[in-house]
Amino acid sequence: MAKALSKVDVAKIHDLHMVQSGVVLPEHLDIFESGIARRLDFSYSGPQSARIARMMFGGQIELGAVHTYLELFARYFIDLTPKVALIAAVSADREGNLYTGPNTEDTPTVVEATSFGKGLVVAQVGEIVDRVPRVDIPADQVHFVVDAKRPFYVEPLFTRDPAAITETQILTAMLAIKGLYMPYGVRRLNHGIGFNTAAIELLLPTYGERLGLKGKVCTHWALNPHPTLIPAIEAGWVEQIHSFGSEVGMEDYMRARPDIFFTGPDGSLRSNRAFCQTAGLYACDMFIGSTLQIDLAGNSSTVTGSRVAGFGGAPNMGSDARGRRHPSEAWLRAGREADPSAATPALRRGRKLVVQIGETFGDGMVPMFVERLAALDLADKLQLDLAPVMVYGDDVTHIVTEEGIANLLLCRDRDEREQAVRGVAGYTEVGRARDRKMVEHLRQRKVIQRPEDLGIDPLDADRSLLAAHSIKDLMLASGGLYRPPSRFRNW
Amino acid sequence: MAKALSKVDVAKIHDLHMVQSGVVLPEHLDIFESGIARRLDFSYSGPQSARIARMMFGGQIELGAVHTYLELFARYFIDLTPKVALIAAVSADREGNLYTGPNTEDTPTVVEATSFGKGLVVAQVGEIVDRVPRVDIPADQVHFVVDAKRPFYVEPLFTRDPAAITETQILTAMLAIKGLYMPYGVRRLNHGIGFNTAAIELLLPTYGERLGLKGKVCTHWALNPHPTLIPAIEAGWVEQIHSFGSEVGMEDYMRARPDIFFTGPDGSLRSNRAFCQTAGLYACDMFIGSTLQIDLAGNSSTVTGSRVAGFGGAPNMGSDARGRRHPSEAWLRAGREADPSAATPALRRGRKLVVQIGETFGDGMVPMFVERLAALDLADKLQLDLAPVMVYGDDVTHIVTEEGIANLLLCRDRDEREQAVRGVAGYTEVGRARDRKMVEHLRQRKVIQRPEDLGIDPLDADRSLLAAHSIKDLMLASGGLYRPPSRFRNW
Repeated sequence: MAKALSKVDVAKIHDLHMVQSGVVLPEHLDIFESGIARRLDFSYSGPQSARIARMMFGGQIELGAVHTYLELFARYFIDLTPKVALIAAVSADREGNLYTGPNTEDTPTVVEATSFGKGLVVAQVGEIVDRVPRVDIPADQVHFVVDAKRPFYVEPLFTRDPAAITETQILTAMLAIKGLYMPYGVRRLNHGIGFNTAAIELLLPTYGERLGLKGKVCTHWALNPHPTLIPAIEAGWVEQIHSFGSEVGMEDYMRARPDIFFTGPDGSLRSNRAFCQTAGLYACDMFIGSTLQIDLAGNSSTVTGSRVAGFGGAPNMGSDARGRRHPSEAWLRAGREADPSAATPALRRGRKLVVQIGETFGDGMVPMFVERLAALDLADKLQLDLAPVMVYGDDVTHIVTEEGIANLLLCRDRDEREQAVRGVAGYTEVGRARDRKMVEHLRQRKVIQRPEDLGIDPLDADRSLLAAHSIKDLMLASGGLYRPPSRFRNW
Repeated sequence: MAKALSKVDVAKIHDLHMVQSGVVLPEHLDIFESGIARRLDFSYSGPQSARIARMMFGGQIELGAVHTYLELFARYFIDLTPKVALIAAVSADREGNLYTGPNTEDTPTVVEATSFGKGLVVAQVGEIVDRVPRVDIPADQVHFVVDAKRPFYVEPLFTRDPAAITETQILTAMLAIKGLYMPYGVRRLNHGIGFNTAAIELLLPTYGERLGLKGKVCTHWALNPHPTLIPAIEAGWVEQIHSFGSEVGMEDYMRARPDIFFTGPDGSLRSNRAFCQTAGLYACDMFIGSTLQIDLAGNSSTVTGSRVAGFGGAPNMGSDARGRRHPSEAWLRAGREADPSAATPALRRGRKLVVQIGETFGDGMVPMFVERLAALDLADKLQLDLAPVMVYGDDVTHIVTEEGIANLLLCRDRDEREQAVRGVAGYTEVGRARDRKMVEHLRQRKVIQRPEDLGIDPLDADRSLLAAHSIKDLMLASGGLYRPPSRFRNW
């Protein structure tokens, strides 16, 4: 349907306002070049991030805002209610009931807003069948069904090959597990999609087991079905996972583990992005993920000079949920650290743990720490009221690099915060400009913890610690049920 | 089903953990007295608030936490996934497809978490029909259907009789409209369910019209179908309303206004509490509501010595959404007021407007302002980690009373905040203990605005300003489509 839309007569259909969480196919942008569409409100543009940036600079796209997923869904019901929704499903029956299967994701939310908001819902399906395996979208919410006669395209976005995990990433994973997961007792959490968190997943059954953490941390997840979590699941670490979306190749494995995943009567996953984002916001004690840039205040962004990737769910999960009213040990401890001398402890809120993890120098030896975010240049160029910041510094509680952990909850003013950031920024310019005396003082107060402060020898950060060393290992760990996409197979 | 559950054999079924957003029927508590249930995680207990408090004090209920709705829904997918869900529907067909109709509310969320989480879903329906008017819950998510042979009970919770609105409430409504809605240009908002906000709704087509605000404020709502909004809807003020739930008697009126309400192909409302709470959190610029107690820091709670009513959605909507990434005039202006001298404006976030509105002395001449919240005594008594605070002071941006508006965004320290609170607390003890000089200084800085500062003469706060003076007027304004429950009819 994206293709079909890109071929309509621009004299008849033009200047559309697209409210679209994921802008991922070339056709999603072609329609802005041809004038079919003009204004865009979106959340995520992963593979199209460079082109979308060029088109914004060139004035071909009039930007509404770069939302977090849940925020865009919210506006679907208030002031950005779609008039027409183009959705994709695995199959439809002759009445129009839809089976969206493992990749249900945003569909129920988009359909509910559109259909009950008096809009039209058009579904592209892979096939028409007599009876759908289960009804994900009831027929009376669907107005048109288009038989595309082939499955809709899905990208394996969450597969990280263990073979590509570096020893530096293993070190940051050890730091996170021993320095954060263990002391805070983090049971309910979300992981980002980078290699650092993949390393954590692969260290749970080895390093985590050795620390005696099984059953004490990482039991309940808001997470896409990461293949790198298979060894931990098989070792009995995980009680339950609710997922935003699915992952290519994980279908049969999830079908075999209905005790862990939210699968339906037909055996396949029912993902739901709106509910999982809500879970990430309100029911998780920790969000940990990577970024491309962190500034001296701890603000982070994945915007670079030439790419606007959007942030997906990170701004939502990487923020303190101020409407939260249920306590947990992890949350209360973080709150106490931020405000140890509260006059009335019962009026002190807890804090969500929001952790940025990465190497001081990322891909291509580009420093992760910067004096000024590239997001600010984008804001200048496009005259945006808000720079596209992924996670704000005042929501970040910890930064983990190979040099150590900075606990920003313990910082008492802006200077301390800046030196805590510099103190884990290694040999980047930001790191080298540290005030050594102040950093040493922060280390004495445990605002900064070095590997040795946590009893971790960087030389132990060895690939032998990984519970799986390759995609093939993951497949074997799944009992052959995980079926990696061909691009990840080299055997 | 609540009745049936209360009659099971306690020798066989006991110590249940109830995860239930609304505890509203006597039977919902009977099961704790008999030992059938032991632990409770909930959000709202309106009519049962006194008994639930007694049972907590008496140790008959082991309290998990008092959640906000969205927070409890979040935990359904993470660590509080129901094993059995008892739900109610208007009708079912013979396959088990459910029609939940206008009061769909929490049902899709509860069912999705339970059914895909491998639990059992048991639905009580008013009748079994050949074909349901629309499918709200597909049959394959439902395991048992019980024909109750009568409709499930619904309370008219959101109906406020215009006849009971006082002139003091009208004055606070005028202050809110002229002092907040107008300068901030609040288009997307949620109202609480008290008489003060009902007064605002009834002043829009009169006082609001006179101020030239039509089309400029109050166009998009996250709101239950309040009968007091009918005159504003009929006067063309409202573009769209998404609702948490329905309201008794509003069914036909909503059916006649599909341009405003989210109605289905069958013509009846589809409410959805999870989506509407999400909308209230992320897509609204203002939450305005009443409370029973406000302390010197602006913390508020509806807990009193003898009642634990729960907070429903207020903590969620009455909090700053730190994951929000889209700007609006209202939100940006509030952010500028809180931090006028930001070094990097593009890094400054906006702020949600969170307004507490009420009279300095409430029902029975009980002061709204207190030195210490009763919620703290409850926390002491039950040894809770967190006092049950509804809205925290650091999220509140304005307090409106008949004495004026306190703008807490403009306060620069704790003392200023305290004096701003005292400065609108009237003749309560908290108000009389004000530092007169400092309050006068705050008034010069417009931190406090009196009615006269806004050009409002309290003598103009007259009932003649209300667009409807009675429930009958509301019915007439609806063209006879609003059918008030009998208890509200006196003609």
